Amino acid sequence: MKVVLREKILRANDEIAEENRKALRHKDLLTINLVSSPGAGKTTLLEKTIAWLRERIRIAVIEGDVYTTKDAERIAGQGVDVVQINTQGGCHLDAHMVGQAMTQMDLNNVDLLVIENVGNLVCPAGFDLGEDFKVAVLSATEGGDKVAKYPVVFQKAEAVVLNKADLIPFTDFDLPGVQGEILGMHPGIPIFVTSARTGEGVEQWCNWLEQKVENKRKGMQG
Amino acid sequence: MKVVLREKILRANDEIAEENRKALRHKDLLTINLVSSPGAGKTTLLEKTIAWLRERIRIAVIEGDVYTTKDAERIAGQGVDVVQINTQGGCHLDAHMVGQAMTQMDLNNVDLLVIENVGNLVCPAGFDLGEDFKVAVLSATEGGDKVAKYPVVFQKAEAVVLNKADLIPFTDFDLPGVQGEILGMHPGIPIFVTSARTGEGVEQWCNWLEQKVENKRKGMQG
Repeated sequence: MKVVLREKILRANDEIAEENRKALRHKDLLTINLVSSPGAGKTTLLEKTIAWLRERIRIAVIEGDVYTTKDAERIAGQGVDVVQINTQGGCHLDAHMVGQAMTQMDLNNVDLLVIENVGNLVCPAGFDLGEDFKVAVLSATEGGDKVAKYPVVFQKAEAVVLNKADLIPFTDFDLPGVQGEILGMHPGIPIFVTSARTGEGVEQWCNWLEQKVENKRKGMQG
Repeated sequence: MKVVLREKILRANDEIAEENRKALRHKDLLTINLVSSPGAGKTTLLEKTIAWLRERIRIAVIEGDVYTTKDAERIAGQGVDVVQINTQGGCHLDAHMVGQAMTQMDLNNVDLLVIENVGNLVCPAGFDLGEDFKVAVLSATEGGDKVAKYPVVFQKAEAVVLNKADLIPFTDFDLPGVQGEILGMHPGIPIFVTSARTGEGVEQWCNWLEQKVENKRKGMQG
């Protein structure tokens, strides 16, 4: 019975996700869905990304969190529009929540909509929100075995950000080994090695993202 | 409808958890449920805990993981009995899974049963497995805001292990501030500051745990 209901939930979710996707396509903007464990650095990465791109790209953010508005307050501090979704115990965003949040935003003058999911490497992987693609953020301090342990998110993502690279010298993290493991699981996927805290690697990630926004504007795939 | 079903699932789970608890009480052993984000260091902490305690305490382990047997292999390397549960996409262990795992173990000569949950700071908090208590593991590299963002697990836990303390000097982690936040949320809860990698603080955690095993043997509460 659990399984049947899960299928029903997923089917309903996918239908709403398609509606979101159509509405977003109509606005001609790129939408990404940031997924990671708690504390991998999604919000700091997003702060740095906004600071880097905001002169050239108009950005809006939907923040997912279980209970708090902490991340939304940080993002609002960057001077962009942000809507907070509190899941009240729920472990991931779903397409309905995102659709509701979209109704509270003016997306007509936005080039890039970033959805920061609830910190969770399992559940968000299974839920399409209507985004163009997912980006997986993995912090070096979590350890390299997370790629094999949480494969779905790395298979579904269109890029991986390996964050907290400034801490690699103090850990056992095997950077080339983990990059190889990600590429073995998802051949050709771009991997950005960053430290959102120090700013290392943020430029490369932002350049790639800006190109994606540009391609979307021109109506190209990807 | 989702909510109703969730209540049904939780009620069924709680009934099975009570059956597990009765069976475990009959064996006179202490059972703990380790909960954390992916990569907080549960498995390394458990390896060090087994190494520290195994001369005096007989330990068995139930390992939860979405797909792999990586952690179970590491724990088996410590020379203790271990049963792996793969949730196949599921984001937490439930009492039924644990009850099934228990039937595959000889618990007659065990003093401490450790259940290592799936790496997830949201979903495992809501599921009683029949354990005596939960222990929350938080790594310093995840950042101190995780206490407020994932309150339920810190409210329900009987102890907190603040792990990866060796990396604190290289981060913005405010140790006294986070300890204060945990204590504000759960007054009096023991907090162990550890680095499972270097061994720092493992002794204090193990001494506390050994006392809990001892108290359980003597039939005392807690």
